[in-house]
Amino acid sequence: MAERTDEQHAEKMKKKKAVHDRILAGKTVEKGLLIVHTGKGKGKTTAALGMVVRAIGHGRKVGVVQFVKGAMATGEKVVFDAFPEQVEFKPMGEGFTWNTQDRARDVALAREAWDEVKRMVADPAYDMVLADELNIVLRYDYLPIEEVLDVLTGRAAMKHVLVTGRNAPQALIDAADLVTEMTLVKHPFREQGVKAQPGIEF
Amino acid sequence: MAERTDEQHAEKMKKKKAVHDRILAGKTVEKGLLIVHTGKGKGKTTAALGMVVRAIGHGRKVGVVQFVKGAMATGEKVVFDAFPEQVEFKPMGEGFTWNTQDRARDVALAREAWDEVKRMVADPAYDMVLADELNIVLRYDYLPIEEVLDVLTGRAAMKHVLVTGRNAPQALIDAADLVTEMTLVKHPFREQGVKAQPGIEF
Repeated sequence: MAERTDEQHAEKMKKKKAVHDRILAGKTVEKGLLIVHTGKGKGKTTAALGMVVRAIGHGRKVGVVQFVKGAMATGEKVVFDAFPEQVEFKPMGEGFTWNTQDRARDVALAREAWDEVKRMVADPAYDMVLADELNIVLRYDYLPIEEVLDVLTGRAAMKHVLVTGRNAPQALIDAADLVTEMTLVKHPFREQGVKAQPGIEF
Repeated sequence: MAERTDEQHAEKMKKKKAVHDRILAGKTVEKGLLIVHTGKGKGKTTAALGMVVRAIGHGRKVGVVQFVKGAMATGEKVVFDAFPEQVEFKPMGEGFTWNTQDRARDVALAREAWDEVKRMVADPAYDMVLADELNIVLRYDYLPIEEVLDVLTGRAAMKHVLVTGRNAPQALIDAADLVTEMTLVKHPFREQGVKAQPGIEF
């Protein structure tokens, strides 16, 4: 950026503030959001975890259902456990990975996890529900997308639902309020042989 | 995806597992990472917050310095406060936004926040340091990029440093181990007039 005088800087910042204030003034809607984190980059589950933490901090009750083993792990568990009244954590993905090579079993596990999501979405006690790695399950057609969309779009007006995982189906993106794609720019796993580390990956 | 028989599915998953196992076997390096979250999308700070939470869960000590007011807020504060021995949270950005229109003041505030980051990076007690919205400060040339890179690349071998904010300088990207770009696919603020909500934005 070219050097600017203090006066030029003040003028520019003043204009920015005016634009910002105008945009904010038009924002009056409060509603539960359907939020999707997708893409091949890191941070899909991690950013959802950050939102869960914020919601906890605001005294909200959150349900977390994990469709794939290991996507959320020991690190967050300790923090969830510090707020037992506010977080219900269901690590349902036990065994669901390409390790199993048993489609019927994977479908049954996906259904079991989805039943937990449905329960939490239907229960007014939960302000936010995180369906972690649900996109993976949809990608393999382990659950019918129509049923998933019916439940998610039929949720109560103020309920937030977060869905993560690469390859989000277009129909889910279309139904969502906020969609972020995490794009890999540089990754130490691929390029440097760095292994998964506590605090970063899990 | 086309329908597959259970046998085809098992075969495909078997191949995937073989590739995955081979990749994992080559990953032996353990090191502190310089991680950058950039891009115009949501989730840069939130994903960093998720990593902080994971690190806390693993018993690590984390320093969090906030360069811009409001980027991290009340939600995460409550959770940090539940682990007082493990998190030092410095919300230094008080007043640093385009609200001030005073460049000299902003530079001084940026310097003050940067001094905290330097202290935490130099102190072996911290396993992870989050410089939240540091990229914004660099974008406005409030701090010399050379000095920032010197400190960050000169850190102890096992220390993780997270830097967030849009418009990460190319030199920082070049120096980083892991860079993720958050891309906006759909945003309720711009398109639907939805305002910032607790648990989602702060």
